[in-house]
This record gives sequence, structure tokens and C-alpha cells, in this order.
Amino acid sequence: MATLIALDWGTSSLRAYLLDDGGAIIDVRQRPWGVRNLPDGGFDAALADITRDWPRCVRIAAGMIGARGGWHEMAYLDLPTDVARVAESLGEVSALDGDPVHLVPGLRDTQRPDVMRGEETQILGAVARDPALSANATLLLPGTHSKWAEVRAGRVIGFRTAMTGELYALLLQHSILGAGVDDDAQADDAIVFLRGVRETRASGDAGALSRIFTLRAQWLNGTLSPTELPSYLSGLLIGEEIRGMSAGREAADVSPIALVGDPVLCARYRKALREFGFSATLAPDNAAAHGLWRIAVSAGLIATASREARA
Amino acid sequence: MATLIALDWGTSSLRAYLLDDGGAIIDVRQRPWGVRNLPDGGFDAALADITRDWPRCVRIAAGMIGARGGWHEMAYLDLPTDVARVAESLGEVSALDGDPVHLVPGLRDTQRPDVMRGEETQILGAVARDPALSANATLLLPGTHSKWAEVRAGRVIGFRTAMTGELYALLLQHSILGAGVDDDAQADDAIVFLRGVRETRASGDAGALSRIFTLRAQWLNGTLSPTELPSYLSGLLIGEEIRGMSAGREAADVSPIALVGDPVLCARYRKALREFGFSATLAPDNAAAHGLWRIAVSAGLIATASREARA
Repeated sequence: MATLIALDWGTSSLRAYLLDDGGAIIDVRQRPWGVRNLPDGGFDAALADITRDWPRCVRIAAGMIGARGGWHEMAYLDLPTDVARVAESLGEVSALDGDPVHLVPGLRDTQRPDVMRGEETQILGAVARDPALSANATLLLPGTHSKWAEVRAGRVIGFRTAMTGELYALLLQHSILGAGVDDDAQADDAIVFLRGVRETRASGDAGALSRIFTLRAQWLNGTLSPTELPSYLSGLLIGEEIRGMSAGREAADVSPIALVGDPVLCARYRKALREFGFSATLAPDNAAAHGLWRIAVSAGLIATASREARA
Repeated sequence: MATLIALDWGTSSLRAYLLDDGGAIIDVRQRPWGVRNLPDGGFDAALADITRDWPRCVRIAAGMIGARGGWHEMAYLDLPTDVARVAESLGEVSALDGDPVHLVPGLRDTQRPDVMRGEETQILGAVARDPALSANATLLLPGTHSKWAEVRAGRVIGFRTAMTGELYALLLQHSILGAGVDDDAQADDAIVFLRGVRETRASGDAGALSRIFTLRAQWLNGTLSPTELPSYLSGLLIGEEIRGMSAGREAADVSPIALVGDPVLCARYRKALREFGFSATLAPDNAAAHGLWRIAVSAGLIATASREARA
């Protein structure tokens, strides 16, 4: 029975899940309607369209929808935190159709400082599905702004952000390094990707920014082609993310790493991690949907089938 | 007596010097006519305009003018090299007025690999004026693509590039970090700049990219204002350049550092270097003009006043 509409509403896209009373996914839809790119009619029109023909259900949303400039600004929740505290801290906004949309707060690590919106829900979803992760893990969520989150005993105790995906896009589209590279060039050459990772690893403490201009020189030398450059740059920057985030630590000192997110990107990170001596597992798919489900259950928003209510 | 027209012709600007037979500057002019931004009539029109009313003299040019896509492509000269080898390797292009323009080759460090065009002339100019630099120095030329060049016994023996200036502009103009910052905001707050430098220094081996997203979090917290952000970002990135280029080396292991280039930018680098325990001197102004003069003398292109001919 359809029980929950779960919305993963980010900067550039909106994904909606229809979940049954056991938390299983009945249907999923995606639109390019991030909070910076809404259709005419704004948030209400986007919501009405993406949930058209779905039964009337409790609705819950996570991501940039709760940021300043989103539908309704939600204060960040400070660490440490877990699913129960997040569930206690939900906000809501009234949609034009008269029903509320419950909103998940982002998290703030005041030690860094650092912030996230949306990833907390993926983390809680991944952790809820795997007791080992819940006990002790580093959750790595690669992307535009990659997150490295530390989880202990079911609580998020700290996290850090690397702007790897954004930096990659900027350098490829706007810098001298990308001059002459086709707009639709892809970072899909696994061999060249690993060359880039190894270039960063070989830089030692100096780091990738001390090596990045060699891409231009290799291009001019003819040893790096326009089709190879994106993969090499991707390897260099993902390598730098891993190098920086693990600096001064042996593999034995780092908690078990679980990758959460797009499977293709996660697989690429897994290869790069291996070059630095780290092994990593891939968390189950649809962590955001599962996290929203768990938060809604914890908040008492929905009645669940008995097998899930005990979880 | 006017003897040499020296052209420092880069990607975004053209500067022309009229020099006398002792190498002193008689006149200087600047236009926004870099090789990517020429006036109607191209290279010849730019040259005719910027040298208008100057006496007919030997002409020599350095910089991106000799790159692929410049007026005439000059092969890179491999290291190690000195003023005599550069002078032996000049090329030339015929201008519409019938006289040649002599062209200085760029340098290539095949060990990295790395390349430069234009900076070799500034280095040779700075070294020619200061015997101490010529003997043993690290010449640091800050800018869009900062160069760290090692000079021993008058020869350039190696160099490395950091894309610090380009990265700063990209992040400020196109990334989430610059969202909400005025287009004309300046990195001129010395206190905040040093906060950025110290943030990178405190990162240790991890490096600035592991900290850079804290700027966004500090912005959201209200602890970093829109007017402060450029200075903080500048400090963070210049700090990273110094951190990466000196990684694993104590101040005593690094050759004396001389800064060459724009005095305001050089002064900012000097402050950042001090935070990392390095002292640096500022090389005399107009290193490019003096370098072109020395190369022209070494190549036998011009007759010099006796005091210079002995130098």
C-alpha cells in the first residue's frame, strides 16, 4: 500500500519516490527541476507534476529544498546526530494543495566548519540498512561536493567536504587545461584515469595542484590527447581528494569506507581508493529514498508494516 | 640614443619599451592587445600602433606571441639554459613594414614536464641585475600561472608552475564559493588574507583543497563576509602554492627566494612566504624589459654603450 512520497530535491534535479508501507519503492520519477531551475509555478507546480496520479500520502523532502533560497529555510542541525534527532527536527511547509511537505534539516559540523543538505539523508539510509556501517564507518558520498562522513554507533560525528566535482567541471570548461577539449568529452578511460590518480599519489605531500599544469605541458608535448584529458584530470582530482582526506593516516587508521551514490562514480572512486591502499564497499542503491523512509518512520509520520516497524 | 624596441606580448596584454643604448627605459606603452585579443589588422596593426612615433629600431619580443596561435610558433628550448643559449635560439617574423621582429623561445622542463613563455625573459633580466640571484636562487614569478624557477650559476635548471591566479579567478567567478560576491570585490584585506594563508598552513600535508569548502560554511555562519571572501580565498590558494612547492623541505633547504613581477602581488606573496618560514627579496622592476635587452645584446643585435657592453 502506498504510504510515503519521498522527495530528494537538490540544486539541479528533483527525484520523487513512492514507497509502500514496508519501505519498498513502488515508483520513481525524475525532473530537471532543482531549486535553481524550477518550472513556471515554482515549487508547488513541480510537486504537483512529479506526483501526478500518485495516491495522496504523507510527503517528506530532503536536500537544497530546505536551504536559503529553497522552499523554506531549515536551520542546520549540529553534530553529533542520528535518525531520531533528525526526525525530531523536521520542519514543514504548506503546499497549495493544502497538505504539508515535511522537511529534513541539513547538518553542520561546527568543528571545521562544514555543512551538508541532502547527504545526511543518504547517510542515514545507508547506515540503517547495514549494522556494520552503523557501528563504525567512513561514508564517502562522491559528487560535485564530495562528503566524507564519520559514523559511530549510528551517529554522524563529523564530516568534511571536497569540491572535487565542481573543480573538475570548472577546470575543464573554463581553464587553459580544457582549451581544445570537446564539450561532450567524457572521463571514461579507465587506464588514463589511473595515470592521473598515480600522478597525484606520486606528488606525496605536495599534492595535485603542484602537478596540475603538467597536463598542459603533456598536451603541448602530444603525450596527452584531447580525448584523454578529462579522464586524466578526473584521476588527478579524485586522487587529490583521497590524498588530502587521508593525509597522515595509514589504511589501518581509517575506518572501513563505504561509497554511497551513483554506481558509476562510486566504482571510479573505489579504483582510486585502491591506489592509495584503501578498500571500499559500495552501499546499496537508493540510500536517499531509504533514509527518507527511516526518518518518516522515526518521526511517527506513517504507519508501517510490522516487519519494518520493528527495525 | 634609442636602440631597442622590447615587446612583452602575453595572452591578455601587450607592453612595449623603448630602450637607449645603455639599456635604460626611454618610454613604455601598454595596450590590452594580448594574442587572444588583437585589434583589427592583427599583429601588424598592434605593433604599428604601439610603436607609433618611435624611431626605427631593432625589435625583439617575448611571451605568448611565440606560442601556437601566436604570430609565429617558436619551439621550446630545453633546460638547462642561459642567456647565451636563448640568444642563439631567437627566431623572427617579418612585419608588414618590412623589418623583422626577433622572437624569444619559451622554455621547457622535460622532467616535469612543464613549459613557460615570457617568464624566461623576466628571469634572465632579474638574474642579470643581481649576481647573488645568478649564483643560486629560486625565482618566484606570481600570477595567473605562477612559476618557481631554480637558477644556478646563471642557468635555469628547472621550474614548476602553479595555476594559482587562474584557480582564484575561476573559483570566485564560477563556483559556489563566489556566489553573492560582487564582481569588483578585491583581495585587499591583509588581515583576512593572512587568515587564509594560516588555514592552509594549519592543514599540514592535507592541503587547502581539503579545507576550501569551509569558506562556504563560514559564509553561511556569517563569520566570513562577501567583502572578505576574496582575500581569504587568495590567502588560502597562495598558501597552498607555497605549501605544495615547498612540501617536505625546511626553509634552510630552499634556495634564497626572489619575487619577480607586479609589486603589489609580490608583496602579498612575501607576507604569505613569511608565514611558512621563508624570507624573500623583491627583484628590481621591469625584469622583462631588462631581459629582452640582455638577450638582444647577447645575440649581437644591437650596439651598446661601453658601460653596458662590458656587463
